[in-house]
Amino acid sequence: MSGEADILRRLRELATDPAARGLLDDVAVVPTIGQQIILTSDSMVEGVHFRSDDPAETVGWKLAAVNLSDLAAKGAAPSSCMLNYALTGDARWDNGFLDGLSRALRSFGMHLIGGDTVAMPEGAPRVIGLTAIGEVPNGQPVPSRSGARPGDILYVSGPVGDAGAGLALLNEGKSAPAELIRAYRVPTPHLTLGQSLAMMAHAMMDVSDGLLIDAARMAAASDCAIEISHVPLSEIYESVRGRTVEARLAAATAGDDYVLLVALPKDRDPPHGLIEVGQFKRGEGITLRLDGKAVKLPDRLGYEHG
Amino acid sequence: MSGEADILRRLRELATDPAARGLLDDVAVVPTIGQQIILTSDSMVEGVHFRSDDPAETVGWKLAAVNLSDLAAKGAAPSSCMLNYALTGDARWDNGFLDGLSRALRSFGMHLIGGDTVAMPEGAPRVIGLTAIGEVPNGQPVPSRSGARPGDILYVSGPVGDAGAGLALLNEGKSAPAELIRAYRVPTPHLTLGQSLAMMAHAMMDVSDGLLIDAARMAAASDCAIEISHVPLSEIYESVRGRTVEARLAAATAGDDYVLLVALPKDRDPPHGLIEVGQFKRGEGITLRLDGKAVKLPDRLGYEHG
Repeated sequence: MSGEADILRRLRELATDPAARGLLDDVAVVPTIGQQIILTSDSMVEGVHFRSDDPAETVGWKLAAVNLSDLAAKGAAPSSCMLNYALTGDARWDNGFLDGLSRALRSFGMHLIGGDTVAMPEGAPRVIGLTAIGEVPNGQPVPSRSGARPGDILYVSGPVGDAGAGLALLNEGKSAPAELIRAYRVPTPHLTLGQSLAMMAHAMMDVSDGLLIDAARMAAASDCAIEISHVPLSEIYESVRGRTVEARLAAATAGDDYVLLVALPKDRDPPHGLIEVGQFKRGEGITLRLDGKAVKLPDRLGYEHG
Repeated sequence: MSGEADILRRLRELATDPAARGLLDDVAVVPTIGQQIILTSDSMVEGVHFRSDDPAETVGWKLAAVNLSDLAAKGAAPSSCMLNYALTGDARWDNGFLDGLSRALRSFGMHLIGGDTVAMPEGAPRVIGLTAIGEVPNGQPVPSRSGARPGDILYVSGPVGDAGAGLALLNEGKSAPAELIRAYRVPTPHLTLGQSLAMMAHAMMDVSDGLLIDAARMAAASDCAIEISHVPLSEIYESVRGRTVEARLAAATAGDDYVLLVALPKDRDPPHGLIEVGQFKRGEGITLRLDGKAVKLPDRLGYEHG
């Protein structure tokens, strides 16, 4: 398959970091000097995490971005990654994917150092995995989900719902504003903000499955209750969906937002770019108050696992 | 899906290393003290790398073993791993897989510290990936494929062909001796030997695609020629296939052997367990001499990529 040889050549061209050994060895070798190594791994499956008609370039970008968003939430500086790529037999798609992936790697300073390529049986869905590796200096805290305390304020680093609205419109076969489609297809990890928050955060994670479900997970891990009092929407989201309670619940449960979710002490001035969305309390569970009124939680708090 | 919750609970039970953060965070955090981190990643696809009727336990074991074999070839001590698991919707299979995986992790001292689980569309083949992480003390060489020199002797750490013969018999629907099926389904990585060889090896890798193709790759990476003069067979292999030139060529091109392939200086006494199979020369390419006679190379030197 000449397409495959072409892909392998392109992967080698990407792998310029010495740790990669030119992808000519069976391993990558990462020297350490006492830093903390942060590892995260996310896979994307065609028909589950992306649409068959999503441009290959955006799938490559997004695979990097979703992993980088996990690093961002730990204050880690991206260093390298391992790619597990299932060859599709479609050289044009594979090349597009690599274009998008390599653009993301360049943008965020992450080097490809290894992985593998496998052939898939005819007709199988595309499956692509990335393991991202970041670094945090020794002694610097790596915020977990579990450090929030009663009284802490919960912030997000941007509006939610855009990606979900973009995806929903695509799934309905409707035209969608470019901003919403971009939010779904080419999210931007909040790396710089994550690094500046890591020193002060009691707890931090990214919103990948939905604001409500991820806030509930942080509260549960922290043995706290969380009351959500605000669902920040973008202007474009409001222009399409409005800002009814229903529209805000849709935005808070859609997922794919890749904004940071961070618990800070109440007396701490939040850095620029954070939006207050709730407060931790004693107890357990999640409650929702919008416009000063209690709102019944939806049955589905977000994208459930899988 | 209760099966899925069950699998996630079992994965958490496996993830006892502090680096795993109980799989309750989005990342793993590996502290370092100046060691070299060795990373390798191999995926297995149903119908490509394993048979649909291979017992799930053996698929779990083998996924760990093939990655550990890469660590063995670099003299690395296994430390941890990230699992990328595509849920199959078949709880019995998933549980069997985890049984086999956890047995391998326990046997070889590798801790599960992260990864992800994804749902697959109905009818999709099983796809499972593992990224294994090993450690080598600073200053200790990590042998590559490329350090062999003219005059070096090439050794393997065991006979080849058993796994390939076991797989071939299974594919033909014939009964196969248990030893051959075990060689195919539950290979053992040569970790201890790899660690003792790392200090003296000019080049080292494992035989995963076949003795001939992997020896040719080592020679090419080392800018040498290689002459193969011996194809070591097991007794059980000989009893089934004989030891004709044809039988030996089949054994040398089948792959899935997971023995070490190591280049040592000519004047170095090889440690116990190594079998001499050839010698590096000036020049390039691979030649084959069996029983003192030149043998024409087969068209296919081994399992080609994918």
